[in-house]
Amino acid sequence: MHKPLFALAALSLAVPVPLTAAPSQSTLVDHAERAAAEDRLAWDFVEGITTEVGSRMAGTEAEARGRAWAMRWLRVNGFANVVEEPYDMSTWVRGAETAMVTAPFQQPMHITALGGSASTGPGGIEAEVVFFPTYAALEAASPGSLTGKIAFISHDMRPTQDGSGYGFAGPARWTGASLAASKGAIATVIRSIGTENHRTPHTGGTTFAEGVRPTPAGAISNPDADNLERIFARSSGKSVTMKLVLTPRDLGMTKSGNVTGEIVGRDPSLPPVLLACHLDSWDLGTGAVDDGAGCAIIAAAAKQVAALGQPLRTIRVLFAGAEEVGLFGSSAYADAHKDEHFMVGLESDFGADRIWRIDSNFTESDPALYKQLTTAVARLGVAPSKQVAGGGADLNVLRAQKGALVDLQQDGTRYFDLHHTPDDTLDKIDPVQLRQNVAVWTATVGVLANHSDRVGLAK
Amino acid sequence: MHKPLFALAALSLAVPVPLTAAPSQSTLVDHAERAAAEDRLAWDFVEGITTEVGSRMAGTEAEARGRAWAMRWLRVNGFANVVEEPYDMSTWVRGAETAMVTAPFQQPMHITALGGSASTGPGGIEAEVVFFPTYAALEAASPGSLTGKIAFISHDMRPTQDGSGYGFAGPARWTGASLAASKGAIATVIRSIGTENHRTPHTGGTTFAEGVRPTPAGAISNPDADNLERIFARSSGKSVTMKLVLTPRDLGMTKSGNVTGEIVGRDPSLPPVLLACHLDSWDLGTGAVDDGAGCAIIAAAAKQVAALGQPLRTIRVLFAGAEEVGLFGSSAYADAHKDEHFMVGLESDFGADRIWRIDSNFTESDPALYKQLTTAVARLGVAPSKQVAGGGADLNVLRAQKGALVDLQQDGTRYFDLHHTPDDTLDKIDPVQLRQNVAVWTATVGVLANHSDRVGLAK
Repeated sequence: MHKPLFALAALSLAVPVPLTAAPSQSTLVDHAERAAAEDRLAWDFVEGITTEVGSRMAGTEAEARGRAWAMRWLRVNGFANVVEEPYDMSTWVRGAETAMVTAPFQQPMHITALGGSASTGPGGIEAEVVFFPTYAALEAASPGSLTGKIAFISHDMRPTQDGSGYGFAGPARWTGASLAASKGAIATVIRSIGTENHRTPHTGGTTFAEGVRPTPAGAISNPDADNLERIFARSSGKSVTMKLVLTPRDLGMTKSGNVTGEIVGRDPSLPPVLLACHLDSWDLGTGAVDDGAGCAIIAAAAKQVAALGQPLRTIRVLFAGAEEVGLFGSSAYADAHKDEHFMVGLESDFGADRIWRIDSNFTESDPALYKQLTTAVARLGVAPSKQVAGGGADLNVLRAQKGALVDLQQDGTRYFDLHHTPDDTLDKIDPVQLRQNVAVWTATVGVLANHSDRVGLAK
Repeated sequence: MHKPLFALAALSLAVPVPLTAAPSQSTLVDHAERAAAEDRLAWDFVEGITTEVGSRMAGTEAEARGRAWAMRWLRVNGFANVVEEPYDMSTWVRGAETAMVTAPFQQPMHITALGGSASTGPGGIEAEVVFFPTYAALEAASPGSLTGKIAFISHDMRPTQDGSGYGFAGPARWTGASLAASKGAIATVIRSIGTENHRTPHTGGTTFAEGVRPTPAGAISNPDADNLERIFARSSGKSVTMKLVLTPRDLGMTKSGNVTGEIVGRDPSLPPVLLACHLDSWDLGTGAVDDGAGCAIIAAAAKQVAALGQPLRTIRVLFAGAEEVGLFGSSAYADAHKDEHFMVGLESDFGADRIWRIDSNFTESDPALYKQLTTAVARLGVAPSKQVAGGGADLNVLRAQKGALVDLQQDGTRYFDLHHTPDDTLDKIDPVQLRQNVAVWTATVGVLANHSDRVGLAK
């Protein structure tokens, strides 16, 4: 429904305009406001990668196609020093996946395997299901009480603007299968960690504790979990049984990689500003919201800053690989660049809805800089806060060197409707809110990349 | 999330209260308003059948389980003369279904076969795709121009309160594959006839004209159709190719059936009031909105009317079979009952959202009765109209005898978000609107079943 954008010449920046001084704050804010109304770069990126590549499962050839696509986009759009930094990783891929309640009523369930799930084998398994309404109920189950059974954890999630509902419900996915397996379960089925009611189950990684043998583990959609709860309620004490077929497999070690590109600053000897996102996605959707949008936003913002003239500091974009399945890209980048000093790091990885708050980890220790940032973004509807920024998952390199961090908090109310589902597709991105992101990033990065002093951090 | 209802004894009606006269209009309207606030029968029905049976594909054992369940429910709830009327039908069932764009970009598409689709065979077919933005564009294609190719018809649908968008977009599904096949296409893929943007494609029947050999035919979800359109836009003139695997099959002749039950009237010699719905559903969802809700509404209303005392006329509910795949149940019922005279027929088959308008085919010819009906439902937010009721698909028996019809028009704005998709599940039903339906039906059927005269129809 949306046409690609070929006419980006007006913003082409093969040679940024040389500047001898930073743009004034008002020039920068005016430019950011124009980006809020007019930016087409971010849409071009996310529309392009979701159309020409689609899903980009970590460690697979699809992720490699994503890297090639992104490097070409960066070069076409005037970024310098576009490089790939490869690394090896252990790669898991999905197989067949079906689930059927076989008694007391027959009902097929929409299921998807969790990353790290073991295989049932092609013939599947059939066993009695034990219902746990919450993670705490599973914790309370006796050792050995699940021997030979399938655990069903129906711990549900509610939407929150700040995404905190994920912390509440997430453990059911992150460690529920391991906990159930430690009590004897031969498989685990969870209610999707998601906030909508469509029959599109939410995948995501699960981890088995040391000494616990991995079992098959899948998530059923919220309507299926509701139905399974009702089947228990109407079972009149009869056993509920399920036939489960999940055949994911490990491909062993494969190639993955990070991609970086730069807007080179007037003084390349100064520590650069690092903007991160991740290029890989889960395999079910097209990686639009998670995290094509994040890469689109940071790349567009870097270019929007450069459109005002060459910034003082270099701006580097890091399109990390293999975030979803265990931060392999972030770890590799932190290892490879541990001796390189960065001025500050920022990440976009929470969809494409509007930014409503700016946090930093120097709000008290460098109030002048924080004030400059909050002033620059206030007109775009972004509030200051006293929260301490922790940085995103792909900023390990900054955390390792105890560097400066800024978090531009997005509205996450809708995010977990789509997170890790087949429904993570381009149509879910609101172009108006996407541009607001670009504008806020432009203002923020514009201030930081033209800031000559180091950031004052607490000792 | 919703618990079953066991405590329906208060409304149990094994023996309706005998009455010697009709309830007054105000008594009836007061009772209908209580039903709007308190009815639990309709929810109990639709919650029960979607939990204990689920999808009920026509001609299969799942539909037979649905009939058995419904007959038990009718008996438990005090209906008399609960019978099954079997018939034979030709039955089509789904097989494997996958679609993959193979060039110029690789993208998997969420697809579902249309009812009546031929099979590609398990190995599938791969061919160039030809894009038709509308049905008219396909009509304009030259004879033979699609030889060896897959037609993609992207004719899209918009929501309308009265469902008229279905008439605009529907032909792409109903006859698009036949039209494309007549021009040489080896398969047809359509944009889902649906109004939402989830990756849950909409199935439904397609028909091949006489002399046109059936081809494989499927619908992709709206986000996939958007993506395929963008793939064409970014293809730079290169061919777009698709690999398609659809393996539905015909089971030959199998058993299906209609289910009826009655609230017997004080004067069983008078022609009864016939309330219809269909019990079968497409296989993808659980048949909640289409049409578990309809059967729930008519059964609850019949019982709510009886709760006011035995009505003058018998009220018969007809849970028709095999509506979705070709009105086999409706045809069988019309044949079997062509010599039985019905006072009037009404059908509920448009989801569970609120009723906003009442139509009849005697509005001009029997204005007193129509006025009595509109007065009875006005307080429930239902408007009169001059539209002529045509009756629903399962009222062939009434149309054949040129009988009286009343259409209680529901708000269809959301209906085609769910229609024929996996997302047709209980959670989509708003209990408040479901009860409004029961209330409007109670008021309407209460008037009709206590009306002693015949309906005045135009000659």
